[in-house]
Amino acid sequence: MGALHAGHLSLVRQAAQENTDIVVSIYVNPLQFGINEDLDTYPRTWEKDLKKLMELDQEFAETNARMTKSSPHNIGEENKSSRTRQSTSPLVSRSLGRISAVFAPTTETMYPTLPPTSDNGTFVTVTPLASLLEGASRPVFFRGVATVCMKLFNIVAPDKVYFGQKDVQQTVIIKRMVKDLCVPTDVVIGPTMREDDGLAMSSRNIYLGQRRRPKAPILVKALEVAEEQYMCGKLNREDILGPAQSLLDSLAKEQEQLVAEQRVRFEVDYISLADMDSLEEVRVVDETRGAVLSGAIKMLPIENPREGEGDEKSVRLIDNIILKPTR
Amino acid sequence: MGALHAGHLSLVRQAAQENTDIVVSIYVNPLQFGINEDLDTYPRTWEKDLKKLMELDQEFAETNARMTKSSPHNIGEENKSSRTRQSTSPLVSRSLGRISAVFAPTTETMYPTLPPTSDNGTFVTVTPLASLLEGASRPVFFRGVATVCMKLFNIVAPDKVYFGQKDVQQTVIIKRMVKDLCVPTDVVIGPTMREDDGLAMSSRNIYLGQRRRPKAPILVKALEVAEEQYMCGKLNREDILGPAQSLLDSLAKEQEQLVAEQRVRFEVDYISLADMDSLEEVRVVDETRGAVLSGAIKMLPIENPREGEGDEKSVRLIDNIILKPTR
Repeated sequence: MGALHAGHLSLVRQAAQENTDIVVSIYVNPLQFGINEDLDTYPRTWEKDLKKLMELDQEFAETNARMTKSSPHNIGEENKSSRTRQSTSPLVSRSLGRISAVFAPTTETMYPTLPPTSDNGTFVTVTPLASLLEGASRPVFFRGVATVCMKLFNIVAPDKVYFGQKDVQQTVIIKRMVKDLCVPTDVVIGPTMREDDGLAMSSRNIYLGQRRRPKAPILVKALEVAEEQYMCGKLNREDILGPAQSLLDSLAKEQEQLVAEQRVRFEVDYISLADMDSLEEVRVVDETRGAVLSGAIKMLPIENPREGEGDEKSVRLIDNIILKPTR
Repeated sequence: MGALHAGHLSLVRQAAQENTDIVVSIYVNPLQFGINEDLDTYPRTWEKDLKKLMELDQEFAETNARMTKSSPHNIGEENKSSRTRQSTSPLVSRSLGRISAVFAPTTETMYPTLPPTSDNGTFVTVTPLASLLEGASRPVFFRGVATVCMKLFNIVAPDKVYFGQKDVQQTVIIKRMVKDLCVPTDVVIGPTMREDDGLAMSSRNIYLGQRRRPKAPILVKALEVAEEQYMCGKLNREDILGPAQSLLDSLAKEQEQLVAEQRVRFEVDYISLADMDSLEEVRVVDETRGAVLSGAIKMLPIENPREGEGDEKSVRLIDNIILKPTR
């Protein structure tokens, strides 16, 4: 959806290592916004996005040029398949791909018959996955995501599609859709990119403002506390999630004791310990399967804001940590 | 869904004229059957189907051989594109395609994660089109059709897909899905094939039995009466459908007067005059757009059946006639 940050760019970088040609889609998809959500104010930074992508593409080209120069003896040794471009570098299988296109369609292109505001249309639904976790708070969200991704996949026909781990439920749903509808593409998940204090990068972080931003890593901290329990051998739901919940409770109390001009309030939407494929909550983690820890919190509007402290809307943050199988 | 009849074969023949390679899918899709419908008893004639397809493919090969022999002077004059096979005949653009594969998947292949009997799964829905006409009687039908077609399209990646005009609502829904989801294929509609007495060919006609079969053309007769009104310049709904309804009423009365051992009873599900794209009922036909006349009747179980008169289940028949624009 544009408003590109280092997380998006890391996906493009990963794609460049594994492909010859990359298409970046930039489209703020109305279908995945609920009526009370932030479609109108979602950050749109088209010029900046293009500049970042052009710089990145330039970086790929320079890396390729350097590699060609420094390893002349490898020329011709690599396996040249018909799918690799030979024009950029003779070191075909080692060279980075290029950003061949930015696909930024209009809504008329993406929704040719009925506007995405209609209750009617052609939809891809993935149930019950789409109604759990994020879907409980955002009932139309994943229908919008699955539908627009199906369209994008059909238009671009990519060998591989790249999604960020940060939106874990999205990755599970897209993988399921691709499997169920036999879409001929591989779904690749890139790791969550984080700020120095651990906050997962998100285009919506800019909404936080000065007062809330330093407190925003509470979600990942809570998830890390839960992760530690698992790494120490705890498998029961209560043993894993209890300490995370306690941390959030104590942070909330700490803030409540501050004056209105200083405090930051938040609501926990959910903290989940769920199966990796079904996203159903688990009571005991199966060590051979692992699980996914995820959470969503709503940073509430700040009280008595001062100049520059940001605006008054709630900001919803999500994050997750994969608990890998330990056996 | 197999149980191939001349209607299916005419679609394959049409495909052979317009393509080099044809894949025939044969799959009785559980997802499109309601719980009280005939999934278990739907006719399955795998051996016969294969035989018909092999004979048809042989016919294509013989036609190609004949054409090559009889028109030697045309060799090389045709435009040879990279998409045409050159092995069968040098007259590439005139030669018929071949049946390259019959795709007859298992349900495990088509529904890899959840069984199609589940309320959950990955579905393609096309609303409100799927809830009108046939969809009113068969609420899950078009969801099943759209979903399985999306899978088939993704697996086979055909340049063109062929559907029969007989299932007019299906053609409208598949065209809409292809447009809305940007599926890279062309939807081609082949004409309805009919028996000598006008009955539209259908795999389910075999259910009718001796007593009901001769009465089965009442639906197409009623639609033809309506079509005549349009051809005579009538545009109002009542003027077009009234005479069709009268015909059906009089036929029903005629049967009621017979004894139980002889009569055939039927119920009219709907007789529709609808817009070609939206399938919404029209009050007055726009001569520049035309309209679609369609209907469904249920042939009720026969009373006091004699040996060989068929079994006791209802048989639902559908049919349609396109009213073309007259201006």
